[in-house]
Amino acid sequence: MPHFLSTTDADFETRFAALLTMKREDSPDVDEAVAGIIADVRTRGDAAVLDLTAKFDRMELTAEGLRFSEDEIDALCAEVSNAEREALELAAQRIRAYHVRQMPDNQMWTDPDGATLGWRWTPVSAAGLYVPGGLASYPSSVLMNAIPAKVAGVERLAITVPTPDGVANPLVLLAARIAGVDEIYRIGGAQAIAALAYGTETIAPVDKITGPGNAFVAAAKRRVFGKVGIDMIAGPSEILVIADKHNDPDWIAVDLMSQAEHDESAQSILITDDAEFGRAVAKAVEKRLETLERRTIAGKSWEDFGVVITTRDLDEAAELSDRFAPEHLELCVEDPDALSEKIRHAGAIFLGAWTPEAIGDYVGGPNHVLPTARSARFSSGLSVMDFLKRTTLAKMSPEALKAIGPAAERLANSESLEAHGLSVRARLDRLNEGA
Amino acid sequence: MPHFLSTTDADFETRFAALLTMKREDSPDVDEAVAGIIADVRTRGDAAVLDLTAKFDRMELTAEGLRFSEDEIDALCAEVSNAEREALELAAQRIRAYHVRQMPDNQMWTDPDGATLGWRWTPVSAAGLYVPGGLASYPSSVLMNAIPAKVAGVERLAITVPTPDGVANPLVLLAARIAGVDEIYRIGGAQAIAALAYGTETIAPVDKITGPGNAFVAAAKRRVFGKVGIDMIAGPSEILVIADKHNDPDWIAVDLMSQAEHDESAQSILITDDAEFGRAVAKAVEKRLETLERRTIAGKSWEDFGVVITTRDLDEAAELSDRFAPEHLELCVEDPDALSEKIRHAGAIFLGAWTPEAIGDYVGGPNHVLPTARSARFSSGLSVMDFLKRTTLAKMSPEALKAIGPAAERLANSESLEAHGLSVRARLDRLNEGA
Repeated sequence: MPHFLSTTDADFETRFAALLTMKREDSPDVDEAVAGIIADVRTRGDAAVLDLTAKFDRMELTAEGLRFSEDEIDALCAEVSNAEREALELAAQRIRAYHVRQMPDNQMWTDPDGATLGWRWTPVSAAGLYVPGGLASYPSSVLMNAIPAKVAGVERLAITVPTPDGVANPLVLLAARIAGVDEIYRIGGAQAIAALAYGTETIAPVDKITGPGNAFVAAAKRRVFGKVGIDMIAGPSEILVIADKHNDPDWIAVDLMSQAEHDESAQSILITDDAEFGRAVAKAVEKRLETLERRTIAGKSWEDFGVVITTRDLDEAAELSDRFAPEHLELCVEDPDALSEKIRHAGAIFLGAWTPEAIGDYVGGPNHVLPTARSARFSSGLSVMDFLKRTTLAKMSPEALKAIGPAAERLANSESLEAHGLSVRARLDRLNEGA
Repeated sequence: MPHFLSTTDADFETRFAALLTMKREDSPDVDEAVAGIIADVRTRGDAAVLDLTAKFDRMELTAEGLRFSEDEIDALCAEVSNAEREALELAAQRIRAYHVRQMPDNQMWTDPDGATLGWRWTPVSAAGLYVPGGLASYPSSVLMNAIPAKVAGVERLAITVPTPDGVANPLVLLAARIAGVDEIYRIGGAQAIAALAYGTETIAPVDKITGPGNAFVAAAKRRVFGKVGIDMIAGPSEILVIADKHNDPDWIAVDLMSQAEHDESAQSILITDDAEFGRAVAKAVEKRLETLERRTIAGKSWEDFGVVITTRDLDEAAELSDRFAPEHLELCVEDPDALSEKIRHAGAIFLGAWTPEAIGDYVGGPNHVLPTARSARFSSGLSVMDFLKRTTLAKMSPEALKAIGPAAERLANSESLEAHGLSVRARLDRLNEGA
């Protein structure tokens, strides 16, 4: 049974607040082990990576074998069915078309004081994408990480993907090829993150690392942050659906299950202004859970973290949604556009009943790497911006320096930074000599 | 004596590579102490903050006294001279004018398949700015952090600034008022970061924390990252000047010293295509160091980390600069605009000899919070974007779902995520019934 709440309940606020702070994930503390792995890779390079891969992935490799050869990639890609290839290509094309529009403009202008100001965007030179191995090795995530990097203009894009016992996922290799990835290494875990961040004899270091991973990968990303850039540390996935009674309860049920099936720690939340509809959806979920392939996972997620909230109206639903700041938000209501205007915190919004969240996971175009665990309050999904950085530009004319330089000198002196002031003063004195 | 190198030296590459990886800062390992402080503030709230403030800042406060009252702010602001107030107001106005231009656009379009896509930017609801106390308590940094937050639309902006022994900096208070800060708390250290991230009885939690600080503050920011957003972890400052022989050596010398005076760990680098000019600048630095107020700090920084590199030409200078990826880059050459086009990695570029870096610290308009320690390879200075987040939007028409839904279903099945596929299939079946 999921958690049933109604905003008219006397204890609603208490129970809702408890839901917001409920811990869904117990990350094992692997930080010490990870620190050791990183130090080992920094010291011994390839040799450490090879030893760790033998230990964790049961793969005896040589330094030359760390990277997939073009022939190996060809052979694996050839295993993919045409239907799957076409689906990947459609997804890639749509993701690319969306992300191209995110490219920001450079600007440069001269203000009334004669100061020319602006900024310019440039891509990160080299990026590394971590792709998990095993069950969570998703080709769609390769597209979602690699395409924004290539659209941004990243010249060198490397992937690491562990292949435990030598098992590689052909779709991952094909997705990497379609996205234009330059290098693919068959390594994983904290050792892969360390190799990308610090480099080894075989693997050149990168400037930015993105992509999801297990507790070891997350801890390693935290540790190399600063040496390289990283994307967010992703937590378990969540969906929040706001639906009125004019929906098919089964559609909403299967949407809720599409998050629940990811992970026992995933969370699916329904907010509706009709209590009866909420019960109908819960019943439809039970029915779907009878036959769903991943019913054990989805059932546990729904049992532990599933939530059905009845509100007085849709405005109240929007307010509660903002407090969750969900990763995914479906608005299955008559006027989803109007309701979306009332939402301030969400990673991605899916408007209307014809837009199941799963469309966004694969072929919609927007990125599926989104802020989890309420971090949509302060962060955004992955985009081309994660692979670009801004250089600000400033150019003073002598007149501009005359106009604004004295204020800089004054503030420098107030901050006891004399040389700052003198660097302005030396120029102003020259101008005054000239006058 | 600074490090003198020439690209024509036989051992240049070795020495240059050593400079790039030279460790300038030994951060004390305070992580365990900080973990304890954060846990204490989470458990005991105000009581913990008050105890820690008594201990570290020698200030006996009550919960009511944590926040500066409007009367206290009024009284402190009245201590500021008119000249300083005008300088702060000019700076604020120019910083605001620059950052307003950074506001990104919302977008929404419908593609040929009938999918309506886009994104919308919204501000973080509440942000906290950390302002160091004592010598490094810079009013200019208050403007540089607070103005972008307010331009972005942050509703609630809180500052924490420690006041050891009760000493407050009136300019910091005035800068906060000019920038539109809503709450000012007289606390600092890891306890201030913990209070901002988790909240106490008196201090409501925020969603994003920015601002520089000592090792305790940096460690605390790292630890609360995820619960809240943070800006970069700043390292010691650096400047790189590319100058040809047509410059006044003294101007360049004082520009180099304007970084060196910050901190013994700061780094000042000159790259020139004229060896004799390089020596002249070094001589001018020695002369300035005779009289500079902060000559002990600046002298030590120049002695330990100062670098003068002679290159064959300016193109080579630009290449070397990119390997440093400097926080501040001055281009004191005949055609600085052309040379700037060859630069890929820099936090801020100052074009031409009339643009000393100190202009950018105060009144230029661009932000002075910039990526240090080579992180301009992958990150940008502070901007309105740090206080905004993007929600992606997607809306399928029935026709769009028909066109792209089957590819989503196929990929979902390839990834063994059946419910994802079913959420699309349920809708497609309805459409097919209707057909």
